[in-house]
Amino acid sequence: MPAHFHLLLTDPHSAARRGRLRTRHGVVETPIFMPVGTQATVKALTPAQVREVGAQIILSNTYHLALRPGSKLIREFGGLHQFMGWDGPILTDSGGFQVFSLAKLRRVTDGGVSFQSHLDGAQVFLGPREVMELQMDFGSDIAMVIDECPAYGASRDDVARAVARSTRWAMACRDIARDTGFLANGHHVFGIVQGSTFDDLRREAAAALVALDFPGYAIGGVAVGEEEPEMLQQVAATAPHLPADKPRYTMGLGTPPQILKMIELGVDMFDCVLPTRLARNGAAFTPHGVVNLRNERHRNSREPLVAGLDNYTCRNFTVGYLRHLVMAGEILGCTLLTLHNVHFYLDLVRQARAHLEAGDFAAWSRAWIANYEGGAG
Amino acid sequence: MPAHFHLLLTDPHSAARRGRLRTRHGVVETPIFMPVGTQATVKALTPAQVREVGAQIILSNTYHLALRPGSKLIREFGGLHQFMGWDGPILTDSGGFQVFSLAKLRRVTDGGVSFQSHLDGAQVFLGPREVMELQMDFGSDIAMVIDECPAYGASRDDVARAVARSTRWAMACRDIARDTGFLANGHHVFGIVQGSTFDDLRREAAAALVALDFPGYAIGGVAVGEEEPEMLQQVAATAPHLPADKPRYTMGLGTPPQILKMIELGVDMFDCVLPTRLARNGAAFTPHGVVNLRNERHRNSREPLVAGLDNYTCRNFTVGYLRHLVMAGEILGCTLLTLHNVHFYLDLVRQARAHLEAGDFAAWSRAWIANYEGGAG
Repeated sequence: MPAHFHLLLTDPHSAARRGRLRTRHGVVETPIFMPVGTQATVKALTPAQVREVGAQIILSNTYHLALRPGSKLIREFGGLHQFMGWDGPILTDSGGFQVFSLAKLRRVTDGGVSFQSHLDGAQVFLGPREVMELQMDFGSDIAMVIDECPAYGASRDDVARAVARSTRWAMACRDIARDTGFLANGHHVFGIVQGSTFDDLRREAAAALVALDFPGYAIGGVAVGEEEPEMLQQVAATAPHLPADKPRYTMGLGTPPQILKMIELGVDMFDCVLPTRLARNGAAFTPHGVVNLRNERHRNSREPLVAGLDNYTCRNFTVGYLRHLVMAGEILGCTLLTLHNVHFYLDLVRQARAHLEAGDFAAWSRAWIANYEGGAG
Repeated sequence: MPAHFHLLLTDPHSAARRGRLRTRHGVVETPIFMPVGTQATVKALTPAQVREVGAQIILSNTYHLALRPGSKLIREFGGLHQFMGWDGPILTDSGGFQVFSLAKLRRVTDGGVSFQSHLDGAQVFLGPREVMELQMDFGSDIAMVIDECPAYGASRDDVARAVARSTRWAMACRDIARDTGFLANGHHVFGIVQGSTFDDLRREAAAALVALDFPGYAIGGVAVGEEEPEMLQQVAATAPHLPADKPRYTMGLGTPPQILKMIELGVDMFDCVLPTRLARNGAAFTPHGVVNLRNERHRNSREPLVAGLDNYTCRNFTVGYLRHLVMAGEILGCTLLTLHNVHFYLDLVRQARAHLEAGDFAAWSRAWIANYEGGAG
């Protein structure tokens, strides 16, 4: 089987990488941002709009889809791509994280985790077999293993136990993916490195997962309540222990500067709800930071959100009109701001790739962050 | 000045007409349906999507825009077309009807109507000068006069007084439109025939307005609580008293069969919130009636909403997926159903125009209605 990931170059001034990931539904140029399509839709956008803003791959959430509409229904419809009308690659998480953040009355055993659906209270059980079957029903291009993510501030003993259990679950997921032909058919499965703030546990977890030879690796258990420096420290403590020839992914992160900082630490893939969620709250990303369109000072602005940014929102609408839509509670406001915000993130990683190729990534990235954090947005 | 409305043909078997209306922002082929863009947006659609489904003209609501964001702001932005990014024709109502249906503490005098804003309680006054200035600020292609719409069941005396007052207001609006050059610049102003269920009052109202030589006429005071036969009776009692060489418009109506029945009575223009509002409630129009996507029976449907209907929703998505979006409360569900419903209405009037040209409108229309009302939708 040909290599599914090509490391095209490594930045001479940082650990940043430029790569290319092959999937059953097309090639992904890394570093890449994956718009979040939790319930089989990137909120407020049509698949055509998702494509139009340059998305190469999207993420969807196994927990939500398993509860509604259910994986068997999606399989009947020919899989998640056909169901939602998106023909590009899809990465799905395992659902484990949502069990810990959304579900009620959960109980973790060595076999998996049982919980009550947050929708209707139904009892559900997720173990390695269940999460792999769900993601096989979806036809995910990249499936994630189930893992146990300890709460921020958990004791070393608790974290060590979670790492050991996550490693066993990862092995079980890999075996299922291998034995069912899921891997051989070109689907990828990524392992997830836990270990919280304990560098040695992260190193051990990484070594154990690398021995299982996953097609890619996620750095898990970050952004669960810790401050940014600690989050970046955990990423820095993990990335060097992952193989150079496999893609690396931090789940559920982050702000634009955080994404650039993690690229600099050698991470290739990102997903985050910020661009879609902030849009629904009436906020927009700009090179000078986030602007809240509810602010009265935008009322008379006949400028685009970001001059020269080539997306439908910036080409056609003024800040003053967008503010009107937000103040009037109009759905079109959500749509136009989501389109812009998602494009902003995708354009950021596009620029990052271009600067990696030009050899000036680190300097550009620091200047970009300084401009963003300088404000006046 | 060349005639702005060309009556291309009249159906040999009914009063239905095929016409062409010229406006400052382009030509409108009639009979036509106007999607409603109350707050300077057709709810849940981008202007590109509104154009894509075949809209030739949209309606916007003066009452709402006057209160938020205000007509002066819209004028600063270059008018309503520029503000909202729609370069086709726009018809605006006068705001009078919303004052009677939405505003609190209203007081009607011969000068106009004063009321409290439903948004913030501010005192507002609308008379002929105010509604014309608002619509001139917007740059409306078609402005409507202010009128007094009596409640359904009002006494003959009350209706007669409302007709007399509406006629005086209509004259004042026309004089303002003439004296300011609004008419000479190619904007149109339509008079509105009131008279409730009193045929003779409608005939008198029509005669008085026709004497004022408006570029078009609306049949007002219908669909304010009466049953459909009575509504159609009022339309039938008014249309013959309007000049054949001017467009006719019934405001705020109706279901697909009602639109066909009114076309048959000689009406040319329609607007209605049903396609957009039902979409947001999870309902879709089909040739067999309205379907509610919340119904469990749609869960496994891999069919399009309407097979062969050429819109983005029907080309790309199954009923089962649309139902999932509705059940999950996803914005994309509103967008895709709105796009379909608005296209359904526009396709209906497109078919009506084609059958008028083919000479078989009345037979086609009756068969279409029978099929629609036969159900199984």
